[in-house]
Amino acid sequence: MTKIDLNCDLGESFGAYTIGMDEKVIPLISSCNIACGFHASDPLVMEKTVAMAKEAGIGIGAHPGYPDLMGFGRRNMNVSPAEAGAYITYQLGALYAFAKSAGVKIQHVKPHGALYNMAGKDYKLALAIAKAVQAFDPELILMGLSGSESVRAAEDIGLPAAKEVFADRAYMPDGSLMPRNMEGAVIHDEKLAISRVIRMVKEHKVTAADGNDIEIVPDSICVHGDNVKALEFVTSIRAALEAEGIAVAPLSEIV
Amino acid sequence: MTKIDLNCDLGESFGAYTIGMDEKVIPLISSCNIACGFHASDPLVMEKTVAMAKEAGIGIGAHPGYPDLMGFGRRNMNVSPAEAGAYITYQLGALYAFAKSAGVKIQHVKPHGALYNMAGKDYKLALAIAKAVQAFDPELILMGLSGSESVRAAEDIGLPAAKEVFADRAYMPDGSLMPRNMEGAVIHDEKLAISRVIRMVKEHKVTAADGNDIEIVPDSICVHGDNVKALEFVTSIRAALEAEGIAVAPLSEIV
Amino acid sequence: MTKIDLNCDLGESFGAYTIGMDEKVIPLISSCNIACGFHASDPLVMEKTVAMAKEAGIGIGAHPGYPDLMGFGRRNMNVSPAEAGAYITYQLGALYAFAKSAGVKIQHVKPHGALYNMAGKDYKLALAIAKAVQAFDPELILMGLSGSESVRAAEDIGLPAAKEVFADRAYMPDGSLMPRNMEGAVIHDEKLAISRVIRMVKEHKVTAADGNDIEIVPDSICVHGDNVKALEFVTSIRAALEAEGIAVAPLSEIV
Amino acid sequence: MTKIDLNCDLGESFGAYTIGMDEKVIPLISSCNIACGFHASDPLVMEKTVAMAKEAGIGIGAHPGYPDLMGFGRRNMNVSPAEAGAYITYQLGALYAFAKSAGVKIQHVKPHGALYNMAGKDYKLALAIAKAVQAFDPELILMGLSGSESVRAAEDIGLPAAKEVFADRAYMPDGSLMPRNMEGAVIHDEKLAISRVIRMVKEHKVTAADGNDIEIVPDSICVHGDNVKALEFVTSIRAALEAEGIAVAPLSEIV
Repeated sequence: MTKIDLNCDLGESFGAYTIGMDEKVIPLISSCNIACGFHASDPLVMEKTVAMAKEAGIGIGAHPGYPDLMGFGRRNMNVSPAEAGAYITYQLGALYAFAKSAGVKIQHVKPHGALYNMAGKDYKLALAIAKAVQAFDPELILMGLSGSESVRAAEDIGLPAAKEVFADRAYMPDGSLMPRNMEGAVIHDEKLAISRVIRMVKEHKVTAADGNDIEIVPDSICVHGDNVKALEFVTSIRAALEAEGIAVAPLSEIV
Repeated sequence: MTKIDLNCDLGESFGAYTIGMDEKVIPLISSCNIACGFHASDPLVMEKTVAMAKEAGIGIGAHPGYPDLMGFGRRNMNVSPAEAGAYITYQLGALYAFAKSAGVKIQHVKPHGALYNMAGKDYKLALAIAKAVQAFDPELILMGLSGSESVRAAEDIGLPAAKEVFADRAYMPDGSLMPRNMEGAVIHDEKLAISRVIRMVKEHKVTAADGNDIEIVPDSICVHGDNVKALEFVTSIRAALEAEGIAVAPLSEIV
Repeated sequence: MTKIDLNCDLGESFGAYTIGMDEKVIPLISSCNIACGFHASDPLVMEKTVAMAKEAGIGIGAHPGYPDLMGFGRRNMNVSPAEAGAYITYQLGALYAFAKSAGVKIQHVKPHGALYNMAGKDYKLALAIAKAVQAFDPELILMGLSGSESVRAAEDIGLPAAKEVFADRAYMPDGSLMPRNMEGAVIHDEKLAISRVIRMVKEHKVTAADGNDIEIVPDSICVHGDNVKALEFVTSIRAALEAEGIAVAPLSEIV
Repeated sequence: MTKIDLNCDLGESFGAYTIGMDEKVIPLISSCNIACGFHASDPLVMEKTVAMAKEAGIGIGAHPGYPDLMGFGRRNMNVSPAEAGAYITYQLGALYAFAKSAGVKIQHVKPHGALYNMAGKDYKLALAIAKAVQAFDPELILMGLSGSESVRAAEDIGLPAAKEVFADRAYMPDGSLMPRNMEGAVIHDEKLAISRVIRMVKEHKVTAADGNDIEIVPDSICVHGDNVKALEFVTSIRAALEAEGIAVAPLSEIV
């Protein structure tokens, strides 16, 4: 049976501040990426989010980011590969402790925001991240953008890699995401977005920006749960996948 | 053979800021408490400090503190037991990751500064800390002030506890430390301080502030390595211990 | 004409995180306390909040807090008077810059959360805060709990002080607030709360916990704007005040 | 009489951490750039540093940086011009408050580290910074690298600008600094460095990397005070300047 993972960022609240509708999106997804305190989250939020993910039986991932709470980890920071590796180790360990104390395993690591984007294009940075994950636990899966340097670096060192795709984004002929500042980068037509996802999962193909089909073999689809519209979209994607006989399953059953 | 542990705080540098003479004090001690990023340290410093401790073969301890970098974790903060427990889990996990990636074990946990002091007097806080440590790994040793609530809480739940003493501090008749704002709280006479430590280790006795002897069974002596004078004092204590036939050994060989 | 100020905390959002319904509450109040980046807020939020307050013509206050973003400044921290004074100066200056750049004045300073509560009971802390405000600008008004050490310290050094009251809180016979952990500390009956406020404003009297009337001369009433129910309560208070012929006016017209 | 300013970063200590030999370098310089709490410093350090600068009678500058304490503000961060402007306003206001409370004026603003470097090459960023300074106080001097976008942006909006030069750095034919990763970027020969500085100040000329002379009109020379060697170099520069009949004077007497 064809399987695909649906992953969503969770645990982004911080202190008195709430972001996300975690309780609502958890039943719709198979894996979650839990923020680790650098770009979002705090120890109490991490503890609670791990408990919710355990209860729901979804795959737990560490979601480490840049040390930029004010910018939510979305601003490029020129950290060295050595710094990035140490930041990954630190945050991964912090989440690991909550998981271990709760009696669950960590399934994967997905860098957040600008760190995800920068590592996707910078092999040295991607390699430092992959090595940090591998040094901690060589069985962890590193999730990266399909076709990115992150996936390449993980594969180069023998670390399990998961290829992530986006339902609502256009792809360039080389398999990279169309930059957000280009016309047509975001697909606003939900039906089109869902049909593209279904085709990626079933046929391993997507129509790129130049009109030609390119090959893409997704392991996980990135979804969002921070507003009502996003939740409806996840519900639609999930229904469409199941209608096509595709099982939604955590990464650990796929990679 | 009688054994005693000498422990010292390490890895307190942060970014461009340096504190401590870690390389100098490491050869003199048997266990270290490595700061975990809340009151001091950063991921690169933690990685480097774990590597140095591994190289020297000394016992590695997590040294979690309050989230108060500006105050170096020395200011009382009214955090709830639940918050304290989560802060311990987070920081312990972060250090664990550097230790695991380096192929070494964590031996103990010693809360830092104001957290150490508050937990020493507040059983609920102490219990939350002990439970957080135990939930992560029930074989870790929790280091607390001899006679404190921290030691009592650990013992109550069956977590290994190490009793810490101070060479240069006076003790009250009930075995607690004389508060620093009292006359005579700090013993400035080095010879006296050392002879008191030797007696604690050999005879399990110390003369309290009222002139009577009280029983004290130390597992570890707290020393400092942040200035030249402190290093000389550690050297003197170590020489005196060895002259008395007392072995300096990590906590894991004692508790 | 009798006048009273209605003050509310504003600008507590931070980066990607939103707290409060600032746009909704602004038309209902006469003064605002703008967070200054230590316990909440960031520079962009401060800039935007000052612009909104200027547009509405309400009195602008600095709302400095403890450096504890994770705890929203609500946890007691044992900072020294010298530290507290410097934290006030820093945050007050930061807000002043946004006000000056926008062409408006700062009317008052109201410490936030645990700093407000601690200063209310600790004269040394209160004095350090009052002196910091006075050193920056002796015409600024320091807002403190009616009957608190904060008000006393300000008056002792000749700094204008504003006495704040709470509509929904019970008062002890000595004029202090009943602690929240005591039965009856919060008045849930809205009508009762409003009638007590009206009486405080008009008659300078409130019935204390022992059933006897005490004198209280309020300059400002603290209200909240972070949820729909709070907004409704502010609307009710304001309507009741106006029905009684009491004008809602900024502190600068009262103190 | 020919005049030149010698400026040095001060007040970079933070909490328990010390950086710099501020007391030693102050007598050698005419202006200082005081860190404002984002990349370094804290409120107590700012208060103390302003007091020392006032006592010495040197020009006081705000030294705002990126919100990156862990990286000491030396890492490029992709903040928007709006964010940068607000960060400048915030930090400038914070320092202003300490200056005002101490009864002294702020003379200039010099962005720190990566913010200085990025603004030097990015006109939009430079313009946002210059406008933020001007909105707060149009008489403040913005210090920027000679020939940089920072100076250009300030001049474009009529904000006083000071052109800074480096004694120990090579210059490209277009007047920009040779990047540090290029061979010969740093001039290690102290005598050569000093003679170049003297020539810049007296003749407004420096020999660029291609061997040709370019025009450069310095207002201030950047020096360092964080180690003994740096202090000796400042002493040498100052002596050489005075031997040439050049007065060392704060920016306010030059721009």
